[in-house]
Amino acid sequence: MKVICDGLDLSDAVMKVSKAMAVKAANIVLEGIKLTAINDSLILTATDTELTIEKTIKADVLMEGETVVVGKYFVDFVKKLEKEQVELSQLYDGQLEIKYSDSVSELQVFSAEKFPIITAEKEDNSFILSVKEFKDLVEKSTLACSTDDSRPILKGCLFEINKGELTIVALDGFRMSVIKKQIKGTGEFNAIIPSRTLNEINRLIESEEEDIKVCLQQNNLYVKVNNTIIYSRLIEGEFVKYNHILPTSFENVVTVNKLNLLNSIERAAIVAKNDRYNVVKFDIKENSMSVCAKSEIGAVNENIPVNLKGKDIIIAFNGKYLTEYLKIVGDEFINLNLNSSIDPCIITPVDNKDFIYLVLPIRING
Amino acid sequence: MKVICDGLDLSDAVMKVSKAMAVKAANIVLEGIKLTAINDSLILTATDTELTIEKTIKADVLMEGETVVVGKYFVDFVKKLEKEQVELSQLYDGQLEIKYSDSVSELQVFSAEKFPIITAEKEDNSFILSVKEFKDLVEKSTLACSTDDSRPILKGCLFEINKGELTIVALDGFRMSVIKKQIKGTGEFNAIIPSRTLNEINRLIESEEEDIKVCLQQNNLYVKVNNTIIYSRLIEGEFVKYNHILPTSFENVVTVNKLNLLNSIERAAIVAKNDRYNVVKFDIKENSMSVCAKSEIGAVNENIPVNLKGKDIIIAFNGKYLTEYLKIVGDEFINLNLNSSIDPCIITPVDNKDFIYLVLPIRING
Repeated sequence: MKVICDGLDLSDAVMKVSKAMAVKAANIVLEGIKLTAINDSLILTATDTELTIEKTIKADVLMEGETVVVGKYFVDFVKKLEKEQVELSQLYDGQLEIKYSDSVSELQVFSAEKFPIITAEKEDNSFILSVKEFKDLVEKSTLACSTDDSRPILKGCLFEINKGELTIVALDGFRMSVIKKQIKGTGEFNAIIPSRTLNEINRLIESEEEDIKVCLQQNNLYVKVNNTIIYSRLIEGEFVKYNHILPTSFENVVTVNKLNLLNSIERAAIVAKNDRYNVVKFDIKENSMSVCAKSEIGAVNENIPVNLKGKDIIIAFNGKYLTEYLKIVGDEFINLNLNSSIDPCIITPVDNKDFIYLVLPIRING
Repeated sequence: MKVICDGLDLSDAVMKVSKAMAVKAANIVLEGIKLTAINDSLILTATDTELTIEKTIKADVLMEGETVVVGKYFVDFVKKLEKEQVELSQLYDGQLEIKYSDSVSELQVFSAEKFPIITAEKEDNSFILSVKEFKDLVEKSTLACSTDDSRPILKGCLFEINKGELTIVALDGFRMSVIKKQIKGTGEFNAIIPSRTLNEINRLIESEEEDIKVCLQQNNLYVKVNNTIIYSRLIEGEFVKYNHILPTSFENVVTVNKLNLLNSIERAAIVAKNDRYNVVKFDIKENSMSVCAKSEIGAVNENIPVNLKGKDIIIAFNGKYLTEYLKIVGDEFINLNLNSSIDPCIITPVDNKDFIYLVLPIRING
């Protein structure tokens, strides 16, 4: 293998694919980055077998071939070559030669034969979203994903496609996010995509213009955007039947300014932080709602204006579950839909019924 | 105590003084921020007994008095009150009442009587620098300070004032920084200032215009800038006799472009990182110098143009000690002043003899 490429292109590609590189893998080749010189391109690939990122850059290919270079050091090294023209050649003694300016360096390589082969199977099902829409959906859905390894299925988001409608569901046992979106595409299929994959895709995609094509296969996800391909294993198993959890009617609807509520809960959470569950209590009356928290370090007692349709109600939540939601919801006003102080609360933006956030209250005394 | 002040002023002051707050102190009052309402001001003070920061802001004082509020939570809380008018009152039941908008919160307080009293003694010696000069001197000197607790004296910088000249010295056993500066002020005195104090002062001072007055007393340092006063204990003891360490004549002087050298050493250090001492080897000839490093993960071999006055020489260093220096030196060209491959190297900017950096070489075989 022998190629010449631009240092900035190389550095950018290496940085991007390195997000999929394994750390302390049993198989050390997974800590490397595979370089494939073919036609007029250099393809860079990294994988931890769960997630794979592949990026293609333009290159002068003097000799086709492939090798796997030790990843962590290659990342650091090419970062310092952004202003150079870089020549990469595989030497016979198992080193990658890196030439730039008046200098010659070498890095250790592994045999490309031991690197897993990842290829896209046939595209069974797919849908297209703009990058902006995709980013927004991922942010709203992964919010409610579990980070707990004890139930791996909850570390992913359910993508349910049915008659041109995409429904994304995530839940962690304390809260749930359900988002609906009309999409281009047909067919009926389900897939559980790891939240890590979704977040990595969100970090990789930049362009506001380009569309992103998401292809779902039996066990894999496959996304192509900007000369970058991301493959990911799907999570196997049966997702929670989320429809049973969603209440359909509410006795009380509280409309409140999002920013007012967020600011109040954030201050209350500082005092509540000392408490195991971050308990923030709402005492909701016709025109105003008090947001309270109390612990040995102090007490917060705020009043914010609201519009209540229904009866007065007292209900308490883990403040963290509300602030995380309120920080990402873009709308100015939201509705808290309540039945009793022990039933789940459904939060929806006033003007958007397609983003439902459910949060369980905390039982309090008195 | 009862005062009304602007939330943004309060938040800014609390954030600044909090840098001196103790963490997990035996005396819990040191984890607090002292509030003193007097005349038309609110004075905020935090101290860990080593370093004290005091900041005065304008306030409507309705009742003079003082109290100590639980620090960590107060910092977080006032950060969320930047847009409010804030009323602070001490309640009789040992709480600080915080009023803003339509809300009333409370935080725990400690008795102000248990808070250490820090006052400036008479100003024995002092000198004045512009904030810009001060920042520059601190950055260059603290670079060579030790971070090792085994020799506390090396965790500080020696400030030596003699006939209108300030000399700052720091060393950690592997390298040394010696900086000279003409100053306004007279007298002869020495003081060892903790590097932590110097770095905290650097973080606190913002204005490019104002001068900073540094007052040195028997055991204390006292700095006043922008309504902020910083007190610090000095380090007691005898500093290393640094003059004996500085060579006075050199057989070889190598002039090199700083950025070229920095880039090369940074790349070499990536490969050398695997090596315990970060060994980067220089093979210096009349017009060019090779920068090399080698370990099991690879090898770097770069050539950069230099101007050598003297004989060819091979010498090796810990790359970290050079990159840290090269990153902060502002000049385009530097001189490496060398005698042999085992004698200390003195680095100076070509056009500035007042900043001397000494670094010990590493003995290599062959």
